[in-house]
Amino acid sequence: MLKLFEYNWQVRQDWFAWCQDVSEEELLKKRTGGIGSILHTLFHIVDVEFSWISGLQMKPEFTEPFEPYATLQKVTELSARFHEEVRPFVLSWTDEMDSKDLTELTPKGEPVTFKYGEVMRHVIAHEIHHIGQLSVWSREAGKVPVTANLIRRGLF
Amino acid sequence: MLKLFEYNWQVRQDWFAWCQDVSEEELLKKRTGGIGSILHTLFHIVDVEFSWISGLQMKPEFTEPFEPYATLQKVTELSARFHEEVRPFVLSWTDEMDSKDLTELTPKGEPVTFKYGEVMRHVIAHEIHHIGQLSVWSREAGKVPVTANLIRRGLF
Repeated sequence: MLKLFEYNWQVRQDWFAWCQDVSEEELLKKRTGGIGSILHTLFHIVDVEFSWISGLQMKPEFTEPFEPYATLQKVTELSARFHEEVRPFVLSWTDEMDSKDLTELTPKGEPVTFKYGEVMRHVIAHEIHHIGQLSVWSREAGKVPVTANLIRRGLF
Repeated sequence: MLKLFEYNWQVRQDWFAWCQDVSEEELLKKRTGGIGSILHTLFHIVDVEFSWISGLQMKPEFTEPFEPYATLQKVTELSARFHEEVRPFVLSWTDEMDSKDLTELTPKGEPVTFKYGEVMRHVIAHEIHHIGQLSVWSREAGKVPVTANLIRRGLF
Protein backbone atom coordinates (compact mmCIF):
# COMPACT_ATOMS: atom_id res chain seq x y z
CA MET A 1 0.00 0.00 0.00
CA LEU A 2 2.75 2.41 1.05
CA LYS A 3 4.63 2.12 -2.26
CA LEU A 4 1.65 3.37 -4.26
CA PHE A 5 1.21 6.33 -1.92
CA GLU A 6 4.93 7.08 -2.23
CA TYR A 7 4.55 6.92 -5.99
CA ASN A 8 1.65 9.39 -5.89
CA TRP A 9 3.51 11.77 -3.59
CA GLN A 10 6.58 11.72 -5.84
CA VAL A 11 4.54 12.25 -9.01
CA ARG A 12 2.62 15.10 -7.32
CA GLN A 13 5.91 16.85 -6.44
CA ASP A 14 7.04 16.39 -10.04
CA TRP A 15 3.84 18.10 -11.20
CA PHE A 16 4.31 20.98 -8.76
CA ALA A 17 7.83 21.42 -10.21
CA TRP A 18 6.39 21.17 -13.75
CA CYS A 19 3.88 23.92 -12.88
CA GLN A 20 6.66 26.35 -12.04
CA ASP A 21 7.48 26.75 -15.73
CA VAL A 22 3.84 27.32 -16.70
CA SER A 23 1.90 30.60 -16.53
CA GLU A 24 -0.82 31.00 -13.92
CA GLU A 25 -3.25 31.65 -16.76
CA GLU A 26 -2.44 28.23 -18.27
CA LEU A 27 -2.68 26.55 -14.83
CA LEU A 28 -6.13 28.05 -14.20
CA LYS A 29 -7.48 27.71 -17.76
CA LYS A 30 -10.79 25.85 -17.92
CA ARG A 31 -10.21 22.41 -19.53
CA THR A 32 -12.53 19.76 -20.89
CA GLY A 33 -13.21 16.89 -18.47
CA GLY A 34 -12.33 16.20 -14.86
CA ILE A 35 -12.30 19.07 -12.38
CA GLY A 36 -11.62 21.59 -15.10
CA SER A 37 -8.15 23.15 -14.61
CA ILE A 38 -4.65 21.90 -13.85
CA LEU A 39 -4.35 23.71 -10.53
CA HIS A 40 -7.87 22.88 -9.39
CA THR A 41 -7.11 19.21 -10.12
CA LEU A 42 -4.00 19.29 -7.93
CA PHE A 43 -6.02 21.00 -5.18
CA HIS A 44 -8.73 18.33 -5.54
CA ILE A 45 -6.17 15.52 -5.25
CA VAL A 46 -4.76 17.07 -2.05
CA ASP A 47 -8.25 17.64 -0.64
CA VAL A 48 -9.56 14.14 -1.36
CA GLU A 49 -6.51 12.33 0.02
CA PHE A 50 -6.56 14.40 3.21
CA SER A 51 -10.33 14.17 3.71
CA TRP A 52 -10.52 10.39 3.34
CA ILE A 53 -7.47 9.76 5.52
CA SER A 54 -8.90 12.16 8.11
CA GLY A 55 -12.17 10.22 7.97
CA LEU A 56 -10.29 6.99 8.68
CA GLN A 57 -8.82 8.70 11.74
CA MET A 58 -12.19 10.09 12.90
CA LYS A 59 -10.93 13.61 12.25
CA PRO A 60 -12.87 16.31 10.38
CA GLU A 61 -12.63 16.51 6.59
CA PHE A 62 -11.37 19.53 4.63
CA THR A 63 -14.36 21.43 3.27
CA GLU A 64 -12.94 24.68 1.92
CA PRO A 65 -13.48 25.69 -1.72
CA PHE A 66 -10.71 26.04 -4.31
CA GLU A 67 -10.94 29.79 -4.86
CA PRO A 68 -8.93 30.97 -1.78
CA TYR A 69 -6.16 28.50 -2.80
CA ALA A 70 -6.02 29.30 -6.51
CA THR A 71 -2.28 29.94 -6.77
CA LEU A 72 0.51 27.42 -7.26
CA GLN A 73 2.15 28.49 -4.00
CA LYS A 74 -1.01 28.03 -1.96
CA VAL A 75 -1.81 24.60 -3.38
CA THR A 76 1.80 23.49 -2.87
CA GLU A 77 1.70 24.71 0.73
CA LEU A 78 -1.64 23.01 1.38
CA SER A 79 -0.25 19.76 -0.01
CA ALA A 80 2.82 19.99 2.25
CA ARG A 81 0.72 20.82 5.32
CA PHE A 82 -1.73 17.96 4.75
CA HIS A 83 1.11 15.57 3.93
CA GLU A 84 2.36 15.93 7.52
CA GLU A 85 -0.98 14.52 8.69
CA VAL A 86 -1.48 11.91 5.97
CA ARG A 87 1.99 10.39 5.94
CA PRO A 88 2.13 9.04 9.54
CA PHE A 89 -1.20 7.26 9.04
CA VAL A 90 -0.09 5.67 5.77
CA LEU A 91 3.24 4.65 7.34
CA SER A 92 1.40 3.00 10.23
CA TRP A 93 -0.84 0.96 7.90
CA THR A 94 -1.03 -2.80 8.47
CA ASP A 95 -2.88 -5.41 6.41
CA GLU A 96 -5.20 -6.09 9.34
CA MET A 97 -6.67 -2.59 8.91
CA ASP A 98 -8.03 -3.58 5.46
CA SER A 99 -11.23 -5.01 6.90
CA LYS A 100 -12.06 -2.27 9.43
CA ASP A 101 -15.37 -0.46 8.82
CA LEU A 102 -15.77 3.26 8.19
CA THR A 103 -19.36 4.42 8.43
CA GLU A 104 -20.28 7.81 6.99
CA LEU A 105 -23.51 9.62 6.30
CA THR A 106 -24.60 10.35 2.74
CA PRO A 107 -25.86 13.87 1.91
CA LYS A 108 -29.35 12.44 2.54
CA GLY A 109 -28.32 11.38 6.04
CA GLU A 110 -28.26 7.64 5.30
CA PRO A 111 -25.38 5.62 6.76
CA VAL A 112 -22.96 4.04 4.28
CA THR A 113 -20.11 1.72 5.23
CA PHE A 114 -16.75 1.27 3.51
CA LYS A 115 -13.83 -0.96 4.38
CA TYR A 116 -10.65 0.88 5.33
CA GLY A 117 -8.78 -1.05 2.61
CA GLU A 118 -11.37 0.07 0.07
CA VAL A 119 -10.90 3.73 1.03
CA MET A 120 -7.10 3.52 0.88
CA ARG A 121 -7.17 1.99 -2.62
CA HIS A 122 -9.80 4.52 -3.70
CA VAL A 123 -7.47 7.34 -2.67
CA ILE A 124 -4.57 5.77 -4.60
CA ALA A 125 -6.62 5.27 -7.78
CA HIS A 126 -8.18 8.72 -7.46
CA GLU A 127 -4.86 10.53 -7.68
CA ILE A 128 -3.47 8.42 -10.54
CA HIS A 129 -6.69 8.90 -12.52
CA HIS A 130 -6.61 12.69 -12.21
CA ILE A 131 -2.90 12.81 -13.02
CA GLY A 132 -3.78 11.01 -16.26
CA GLN A 133 -6.02 13.95 -17.09
CA LEU A 134 -3.18 16.40 -16.42
CA SER A 135 -1.03 14.51 -18.92
CA VAL A 136 -3.54 15.24 -21.71
CA TRP A 137 -3.93 18.88 -20.74
CA SER A 138 -0.16 19.37 -20.60
CA ARG A 139 0.09 18.23 -24.24
CA GLU A 140 -2.72 20.66 -25.10
CA ALA A 141 -0.57 23.36 -23.51
CA GLY A 142 2.35 22.23 -25.69
CA LYS A 143 4.35 20.83 -22.77
CA VAL A 144 5.83 17.39 -22.10
CA PRO A 145 4.00 15.85 -19.10
CA VAL A 146 5.65 14.36 -16.03
CA THR A 147 6.33 10.66 -16.57
CA ALA A 148 3.70 8.37 -15.04
CA ASN A 149 6.11 5.43 -14.86
CA LEU A 150 6.31 3.80 -11.45
CA ILE A 151 9.45 1.87 -12.42
CA ARG A 152 12.80 3.70 -12.36
CA ARG A 153 11.76 6.04 -9.52
CA GLY A 154 13.93 4.43 -6.85
CA LEU A 155 10.84 3.28 -4.96
CA PHE A 156 12.15 -0.31 -4.65
CA MET B 1 -2.57 -6.10 -4.83
CA LEU B 2 -5.42 -8.22 -6.22
CA LYS B 3 -8.08 -5.61 -5.40
CA LEU B 4 -6.43 -2.97 -7.58
CA PHE B 5 -6.16 -5.43 -10.48
CA GLU B 6 -9.83 -6.34 -10.00
CA TYR B 7 -10.66 -2.64 -10.05
CA ASN B 8 -8.77 -2.17 -13.30
CA TRP B 9 -10.40 -5.19 -14.92
CA GLN B 10 -13.86 -3.97 -13.92
CA VAL B 11 -13.22 -0.42 -15.15
CA ARG B 12 -11.83 -1.80 -18.42
CA GLN B 13 -15.00 -3.83 -18.99
CA ASP B 14 -17.05 -0.71 -18.27
CA TRP B 15 -15.06 1.15 -20.93
CA PHE B 16 -15.56 -1.66 -23.47
CA ALA B 17 -19.31 -1.38 -22.78
CA TRP B 18 -19.08 2.42 -23.08
CA CYS B 19 -17.38 2.02 -26.46
CA GLN B 20 -20.33 0.09 -27.84
CA ASP B 21 -22.38 3.30 -28.03
CA VAL B 22 -19.60 5.23 -29.76
CA SER B 23 -18.79 5.26 -33.47
CA GLU B 24 -15.63 3.56 -34.70
CA GLU B 25 -14.55 6.89 -36.14
CA GLU B 26 -14.75 8.48 -32.68
CA LEU B 27 -12.91 5.52 -31.11
CA LEU B 28 -10.07 5.78 -33.63
CA LYS B 29 -9.91 9.58 -33.81
CA LYS B 30 -6.43 10.96 -33.13
CA ARG B 31 -6.45 12.73 -29.72
CA THR B 32 -4.00 15.03 -27.97
CA GLY B 33 -1.75 13.29 -25.45
CA GLY B 34 -1.16 9.69 -24.45
CA ILE B 35 -1.25 6.99 -27.09
CA GLY B 36 -3.51 9.06 -29.31
CA SER B 37 -6.92 7.35 -29.66
CA ILE B 38 -9.43 5.75 -27.33
CA LEU B 39 -9.19 2.29 -28.89
CA HIS B 40 -5.41 2.38 -29.22
CA THR B 41 -5.22 3.29 -25.51
CA LEU B 42 -7.33 0.27 -24.55
CA PHE B 43 -5.13 -1.93 -26.78
CA HIS B 44 -2.02 -0.45 -25.13
CA ILE B 45 -3.38 -1.16 -21.63
CA VAL B 46 -4.08 -4.80 -22.57
CA ASP B 47 -0.67 -5.16 -24.23
CA VAL B 48 1.33 -3.64 -21.36
CA GLU B 49 -0.42 -5.65 -18.62
CA PHE B 50 0.04 -8.91 -20.54
CA SER B 51 3.65 -8.23 -21.54
CA TRP B 52 4.85 -7.36 -18.03
CA ILE B 53 3.00 -10.26 -16.40
CA SER B 54 4.40 -12.57 -19.08
CA GLY B 55 7.86 -11.24 -18.31
CA LEU B 56 7.39 -12.08 -14.63
CA GLN B 57 6.53 -15.62 -15.72
CA MET B 58 9.52 -15.87 -18.11
CA LYS B 59 7.12 -16.06 -21.04
CA PRO B 60 7.45 -14.02 -24.25
CA GLU B 61 5.94 -10.54 -24.44
CA PHE B 62 3.28 -9.43 -26.92
CA THR B 63 4.96 -7.48 -29.70
CA GLU B 64 2.27 -7.00 -32.36
CA PRO B 65 1.27 -3.52 -33.54
CA PHE B 66 -2.16 -1.96 -33.03
CA GLU B 67 -3.26 -1.84 -36.67
CA PRO B 68 -4.43 -5.48 -37.08
CA TYR B 69 -6.49 -5.06 -33.87
CA ALA B 70 -8.06 -1.68 -34.65
CA THR B 71 -11.70 -2.63 -34.05
CA LEU B 72 -13.60 -2.71 -30.77
CA GLN B 73 -14.35 -6.41 -31.19
CA LYS B 74 -10.71 -7.34 -31.75
CA VAL B 75 -9.41 -5.34 -28.78
CA THR B 76 -12.15 -6.77 -26.54
CA GLU B 77 -11.26 -10.31 -27.67
CA LEU B 78 -7.55 -9.70 -27.14
CA SER B 79 -8.27 -8.41 -23.63
CA ALA B 80 -10.37 -11.50 -22.81
CA ARG B 81 -7.73 -13.86 -24.23
CA PHE B 82 -4.87 -12.25 -22.31
CA HIS B 83 -6.97 -12.04 -19.16
CA GLU B 84 -7.02 -15.86 -19.02
CA GLU B 85 -3.24 -15.79 -18.75
CA VAL B 86 -2.87 -12.75 -16.49
CA ARG B 87 -5.54 -13.58 -13.92
CA PRO B 88 -4.09 -16.85 -12.54
CA PHE B 89 -0.74 -15.17 -11.96
CA VAL B 90 -2.32 -12.22 -10.14
CA LEU B 91 -4.48 -14.58 -8.07
CA SER B 92 -1.39 -16.57 -7.06
CA TRP B 93 0.48 -13.43 -5.89
CA THR B 94 1.95 -13.46 -2.39
CA ASP B 95 3.73 -10.64 -0.56
CA GLU B 96 6.96 -12.63 -0.61
CA MET B 97 7.10 -12.21 -4.40
CA ASP B 98 7.49 -8.42 -3.97
CA SER B 99 11.27 -8.65 -3.61
CA LYS B 100 12.00 -11.12 -6.44
CA ASP B 101 14.23 -9.77 -9.23
CA LEU B 102 13.26 -9.51 -12.89
CA THR B 103 16.22 -8.80 -15.15
CA GLU B 104 15.55 -7.58 -18.68
CA LEU B 105 17.68 -6.18 -21.47
CA THR B 106 17.29 -2.56 -22.56
CA PRO B 107 17.08 -1.82 -26.33
CA LYS B 108 20.85 -1.20 -26.11
CA GLY B 109 21.36 -4.69 -24.70
CA GLU B 110 22.20 -3.57 -21.17
CA PRO B 111 20.72 -5.56 -18.28
CA VAL B 112 18.22 -3.74 -16.04
CA THR B 113 16.65 -5.22 -12.90
CA PHE B 114 13.22 -4.54 -11.42
CA LYS B 115 11.57 -5.98 -8.33
CA TYR B 116 8.45 -8.05 -9.02
CA GLY B 117 6.49 -5.81 -6.66
CA GLU B 118 7.65 -2.77 -8.60
CA VAL B 119 6.44 -4.26 -11.88
CA MET B 120 3.04 -5.22 -10.46
CA ARG B 121 2.43 -1.71 -9.11
CA HIS B 122 3.68 -0.20 -12.36
CA VAL B 123 1.08 -2.23 -14.27
CA ILE B 124 -1.68 -1.08 -11.88
CA ALA B 125 -0.73 2.60 -12.12
CA HIS B 126 -0.25 2.36 -15.89
CA GLU B 127 -3.84 1.34 -16.54
CA ILE B 128 -5.38 3.89 -14.14
CA HIS B 129 -3.28 6.67 -15.68
CA HIS B 130 -4.38 5.89 -19.23
CA ILE B 131 -8.02 5.53 -18.15
CA GLY B 132 -7.74 9.07 -16.78
CA GLN B 133 -6.87 10.19 -20.31
CA LEU B 134 -9.95 8.40 -21.70
CA SER B 135 -12.11 10.34 -19.27
CA VAL B 136 -10.99 13.65 -20.82
CA TRP B 137 -11.42 12.41 -24.38
CA SER B 138 -14.91 11.10 -23.62
CA ARG B 139 -15.96 14.60 -22.51
CA GLU B 140 -14.45 15.96 -25.74
CA ALA B 141 -16.67 13.48 -27.58
CA GLY B 142 -19.66 14.82 -25.60
CA LYS B 143 -20.09 11.61 -23.58
CA VAL B 144 -20.16 10.94 -19.83
CA PRO B 145 -17.10 8.85 -18.91
CA VAL B 146 -17.12 5.62 -16.91
CA THR B 147 -16.79 6.39 -13.19
CA ALA B 148 -13.27 6.00 -11.86
CA ASN B 149 -14.47 5.46 -8.30
CA LEU B 150 -13.06 2.37 -6.63
CA ILE B 151 -15.61 2.58 -3.81
CA ARG B 152 -19.13 1.30 -4.45
CA ARG B 153 -17.99 -1.36 -6.94
CA GLY B 154 -18.60 -4.34 -4.68
CA LEU B 155 -14.86 -5.06 -4.54
CA PHE B 156 -14.85 -5.30 -0.72
